[in-house]
Amino acid sequence: MDLRTELRKRADFFNTQLDKFMHGGHPEKLYDAMRHLPAAGGKRLRPVLSMLSCESVQGDVINVIPLAIACELAHNFTLVHDDIMDKSQIRRGLPAVHMKYGEPTAIIAGDLLLTKAFESMHKSTIDGKIFKNVEFGLIDCIREISEGQQLDMDFEERKIVSEEEYLEMIRKKTAVFFQYASEAGAILGGADHDKSNAMSQYGLNLGLGFQIWDDYLDVSSDLETLGKDIGNDIRNGKKTLIACHCLNNAEGEDKKTLDSIFGNPDATDEEVKKVHDVFKNTGSIDYAKTKAENFCNKAKKSLEILPDTDAKNILTALVEYATFKREK
Amino acid sequence: MDLRTELRKRADFFNTQLDKFMHGGHPEKLYDAMRHLPAAGGKRLRPVLSMLSCESVQGDVINVIPLAIACELAHNFTLVHDDIMDKSQIRRGLPAVHMKYGEPTAIIAGDLLLTKAFESMHKSTIDGKIFKNVEFGLIDCIREISEGQQLDMDFEERKIVSEEEYLEMIRKKTAVFFQYASEAGAILGGADHDKSNAMSQYGLNLGLGFQIWDDYLDVSSDLETLGKDIGNDIRNGKKTLIACHCLNNAEGEDKKTLDSIFGNPDATDEEVKKVHDVFKNTGSIDYAKTKAENFCNKAKKSLEILPDTDAKNILTALVEYATFKREK
Repeated sequence: MDLRTELRKRADFFNTQLDKFMHGGHPEKLYDAMRHLPAAGGKRLRPVLSMLSCESVQGDVINVIPLAIACELAHNFTLVHDDIMDKSQIRRGLPAVHMKYGEPTAIIAGDLLLTKAFESMHKSTIDGKIFKNVEFGLIDCIREISEGQQLDMDFEERKIVSEEEYLEMIRKKTAVFFQYASEAGAILGGADHDKSNAMSQYGLNLGLGFQIWDDYLDVSSDLETLGKDIGNDIRNGKKTLIACHCLNNAEGEDKKTLDSIFGNPDATDEEVKKVHDVFKNTGSIDYAKTKAENFCNKAKKSLEILPDTDAKNILTALVEYATFKREK
Repeated sequence: MDLRTELRKRADFFNTQLDKFMHGGHPEKLYDAMRHLPAAGGKRLRPVLSMLSCESVQGDVINVIPLAIACELAHNFTLVHDDIMDKSQIRRGLPAVHMKYGEPTAIIAGDLLLTKAFESMHKSTIDGKIFKNVEFGLIDCIREISEGQQLDMDFEERKIVSEEEYLEMIRKKTAVFFQYASEAGAILGGADHDKSNAMSQYGLNLGLGFQIWDDYLDVSSDLETLGKDIGNDIRNGKKTLIACHCLNNAEGEDKKTLDSIFGNPDATDEEVKKVHDVFKNTGSIDYAKTKAENFCNKAKKSLEILPDTDAKNILTALVEYATFKREK
């Protein structure tokens, strides 16, 4: 099995379905703005996850397409609004929606993406009670993502954040969506409670591992190569797991270095390098790596109760692909 | 029957239910921002409409509360995002959400209001198929409001807009929400198809009449008193029904006056007065008034098939209250 081929096959099938769903609409400017980001591609991790999850419980993948589309559109809704909030200019190699269409249209385009996500859910042919549960899961997921986004902004203003608070923030901001796509995909595939619960745990732990690995990659890579990102994060006082661990555990000189440099927008490259050394000295970088590995192992372990299928193998390999084997 | 007392009674009951639903939430800043506008009051026209509609088909009003809350929150969602787009500073006598909490939090607070609207719908105890239909109505409504908002912005850039296009815009931007609240309230009250359809027509025509009357009030009132609003609308080239009618029907000197002044941001007060005279001369102000009256009469007429109840009397009087007897 070649993992990339397997993922690409599902992403291609998904893209055909997405294109059909996203066709047309008036006024044109609004619908073009709405399509801008989804049409720019991306890995389609969430929809592919829901499809694989459905397959892993031997369900028919066609039943999961309305959900898969809803997941991708709701994800894009968060990106469009996040880019406005963060004043990001580029996304997926293209100008962000607000850069191309202006902020007012971008705000509405985001709103419309969320609306279309719910519209897609309603294309589902499944039975009333299951439909209501699965749709409520999406609502709950969007609520938690909103809360996670605000937490992330709140943390920027704070001197220190506990590991527990950090994990709560990335669970809400990132992991709940992986969790939802996996669990709902299994439910629509006809899973019993134990299997849908296993897939829920898979998605949650994959999401946590994925996000912490992201933090780890940023900081562990060559300072020369990725210097700008690390520098910005340190100057902005970004509360990654590494930073949280370090802020809570550094002592003596290390603590003084952190206090004077971390979160200082005017820190020099030399000073940034010093903070990086403190991250290393306190074992915070290794700590984050181990933590990410633990979540990934948990994700893989939760697949054990599933029958042996291609999908199960792909989901196992996907954990590696999304983390240890990932290219930035 | 005193109309204001009857409306207030229902709004008060609604507010108690809304407060219960909106309680709590973490992070606090986000939830405070989300509550800022709904807590600032307002006429609660949409929820009260859904309650009256339910009563008018002799349904139990308690069944309509989740819908009523959803309507109010979804309406507030559009206001929070509109205020960001329009850079409005004040709403309901208080600073707009983005003025008080900053734009990033205001964007998420808006998103959360929409999410909470759907969450409220899910509190409904009604049966699967009706639930799915009524909820889909809300999704469709939000889609049309987004389209209407974009159309309104697109019209600002255009020299001329037909009456048909204008009516489509206000139908989407304003009337569909009145239509939805009325129709869904009747459905949840147990209405048969004819009665829910009658209530749908009531809401649609009330909404159209309401919006055109708004345009009419702005322009027909004393130029000295409301000079600023009229002046801004004329300088911005705002496409009200009056402006659309005039742009499509003015001839000769009148047309020349419009061409040179309407939509000119630097127009003097003297010039604004000239355009106002052209609006009068071409009969555009009277035209809009008659049009609003026609929609209101249609709204009242659609109530005829309903049984005689207090709610029916209130709905009839509400048409006058929302238009001819309205105070700006």
